[in-house]
Amino acid sequence: SENFNANVVKVAKKIKKLGQDDPRTFIHSLKVGLALTLVSLIYYFRPLYAGFGVSAMWAVLTVVVVFEFTVGATLCKGLNRGFATLLAGVLGVGAHHLASLSGEKGEPIILGIFVFLLATASTFSRFFPHIKARYDYGVLIFILTFSLVAISSYRVDEILEMAHERLSTIIIGSVTCIVITISICPVWAGEDLHNLVALNMEKLADFLEVFGGEYFIIAQDGANVVVSKDDNPFLQGYKSVLNSKTSEESLANFARWEPGHGRFSFRHPWKQYLKIGALTRQCAYQIEALNDYINSEIQVPQEFRREFQQSCTKMSSESGKALKGLASAIKTMTYPSSANDHVENSKTAANDLKTTLKAALLENTELLQVIPAATVASLLIKIVTCTDKIAESV
Amino acid sequence: SENFNANVVKVAKKIKKLGQDDPRTFIHSLKVGLALTLVSLIYYFRPLYAGFGVSAMWAVLTVVVVFEFTVGATLCKGLNRGFATLLAGVLGVGAHHLASLSGEKGEPIILGIFVFLLATASTFSRFFPHIKARYDYGVLIFILTFSLVAISSYRVDEILEMAHERLSTIIIGSVTCIVITISICPVWAGEDLHNLVALNMEKLADFLEVFGGEYFIIAQDGANVVVSKDDNPFLQGYKSVLNSKTSEESLANFARWEPGHGRFSFRHPWKQYLKIGALTRQCAYQIEALNDYINSEIQVPQEFRREFQQSCTKMSSESGKALKGLASAIKTMTYPSSANDHVENSKTAANDLKTTLKAALLENTELLQVIPAATVASLLIKIVTCTDKIAESV
Repeated sequence: SENFNANVVKVAKKIKKLGQDDPRTFIHSLKVGLALTLVSLIYYFRPLYAGFGVSAMWAVLTVVVVFEFTVGATLCKGLNRGFATLLAGVLGVGAHHLASLSGEKGEPIILGIFVFLLATASTFSRFFPHIKARYDYGVLIFILTFSLVAISSYRVDEILEMAHERLSTIIIGSVTCIVITISICPVWAGEDLHNLVALNMEKLADFLEVFGGEYFIIAQDGANVVVSKDDNPFLQGYKSVLNSKTSEESLANFARWEPGHGRFSFRHPWKQYLKIGALTRQCAYQIEALNDYINSEIQVPQEFRREFQQSCTKMSSESGKALKGLASAIKTMTYPSSANDHVENSKTAANDLKTTLKAALLENTELLQVIPAATVASLLIKIVTCTDKIAESV
Repeated sequence: SENFNANVVKVAKKIKKLGQDDPRTFIHSLKVGLALTLVSLIYYFRPLYAGFGVSAMWAVLTVVVVFEFTVGATLCKGLNRGFATLLAGVLGVGAHHLASLSGEKGEPIILGIFVFLLATASTFSRFFPHIKARYDYGVLIFILTFSLVAISSYRVDEILEMAHERLSTIIIGSVTCIVITISICPVWAGEDLHNLVALNMEKLADFLEVFGGEYFIIAQDGANVVVSKDDNPFLQGYKSVLNSKTSEESLANFARWEPGHGRFSFRHPWKQYLKIGALTRQCAYQIEALNDYINSEIQVPQEFRREFQQSCTKMSSESGKALKGLASAIKTMTYPSSANDHVENSKTAANDLKTTLKAALLENTELLQVIPAATVASLLIKIVTCTDKIAESV
């Protein structure tokens, strides 16, 4: 029993944490409950139920499967479902008429062939990336509705009335979802994408701002001092950027279905976010390579190190600041003027570093020991270039 | 009309290409068609239809939504659907009994509260990553069935019979899907994962084997000769590895549901594949950083370059061979003996390179111009380390 209590407490804590991390999840759950309760009213009021009959269950079914977290996803599914049902219903009734021409015996065979062919073709079409991304759910519903209408037409006599009842309940379900999702604390996929792209940049910026310091603390201690990287959240944050492609793409996909909201118009250039996201990831890959050097041993001669440290720290922190500036420019949708200064600064630092390295050679320092440092420098230069590219496309 | 013809030809070519790239997509489509035609038999045979009535449509519905590309995904959805329906059905009937105790007027209110609470709680549970990964579909079906049973119990009198009919048709649908997906050209998620991990390694290996050559061709030409990287498929293949995390995780997730097949037992260590996949990605990030240097200008002094080139090319090609060896070891599930030799070779080459660099300093070459080359070397050394780690965990 004690064990059980401990488990309950653990689960309760998890629930609380999830709710605090993103209170929208909790609100979303309430919205789903509300939508379901609303459509179930059809059952409870006699006049409504008399109108729809058993088809009322399609409204419930629609709400459960269509209601998604973001407005874009709900709209995408709702519209897909509505149009696919309409199209498949019309085709299904058509198939029924064609099949009924061939008499009592031939009808099931013809219907079977129709269903087989359409299901095969539609399933195959789902493998095309373009269709998969936008209309996957619609094609699924198309297969479903066509099969149901075509097959049950063999047994149900009032096929037209059935199709009509079903379509109207599905529309009721979809509209309920869409109205509730937009009117109560809407979660916009577009806004999420906007914030995600800016947040990812900030994560990289956090890393770069801290990196200079971290790296040289170790260098000053001589070497071999293994700083536990995992303790510093700033140095770990960028990892999530590496795998952000999937979520960015799905958000951009849903954002396209959304009407204008807040500062975003209907045809907001969502693709531009994907481009910026790709560049940010590119930069994150460089940082990933750079991160491996934090714990590497460096034994650079004293005189060389001072200058080297100066330019490296400057490059790192200036590109960090530039990225922060760009992120906030994205957030506020303004022209990134301060960021451009920082990009210039980091470029200057990169040039300084080149000079330092040149000078180091003349002093005849041990090349082998400069190499990790040089690699770090070289990667930082790449990051500066990357930042510059991002700045251009914002 | 000419334009239309051209479009038709284009689409036909696309279809042909998709079918040739992965003929399993075409077979899968035929399987879905077959499964649908089979369950629609329930409608056509009078004795079967008499037993199930309108509930027969649930069999069709189940086939359409449960039939997935891989065996694991189909099993996962089918089992989730079956158990969730059973559980929700029992709870729904229970809720109906409880509510009916409160009389004609109170019943819809109590039912409404039940539906609202359960829908909210279940929707919230879908946000937990653990539940999302494995039981997402089950929870969805749970909400759906509970709502349908609880709400329609208000109108339908023979609620138990309805629930029973519905459950049995859903089981018929699920079993049909599972039998067809396993018996006709099964696509195993586990095998796909196995091949994907090995293929990703091979892609990296291809890059590494070609890289040495490509990089130094430019170096020999002096500089500034921009080789169009995009033309060489070997140098582009690794890009897909960078974003392979999502597909690997979903495959591993589905693989867990699969029974033993071929060389894989039921409790095959699928997580190990994810670990190897993560290391491979780690290596791919380094390669991504390396790739940026292919077109960079290098003006290394003649005498230094020869030796440098030798060790770099050797490191690159030996780690490439090692990865190839590891990939084929994974494929054949044998101990990677040849790969270990190549890892050793690449380590030796890395040491040689260090010596070369040391010597280069004594000859007082221009440090600044060695730096890109040194970075390349340094990254290659990291890749060798990475390869070594992969070798350990295979």
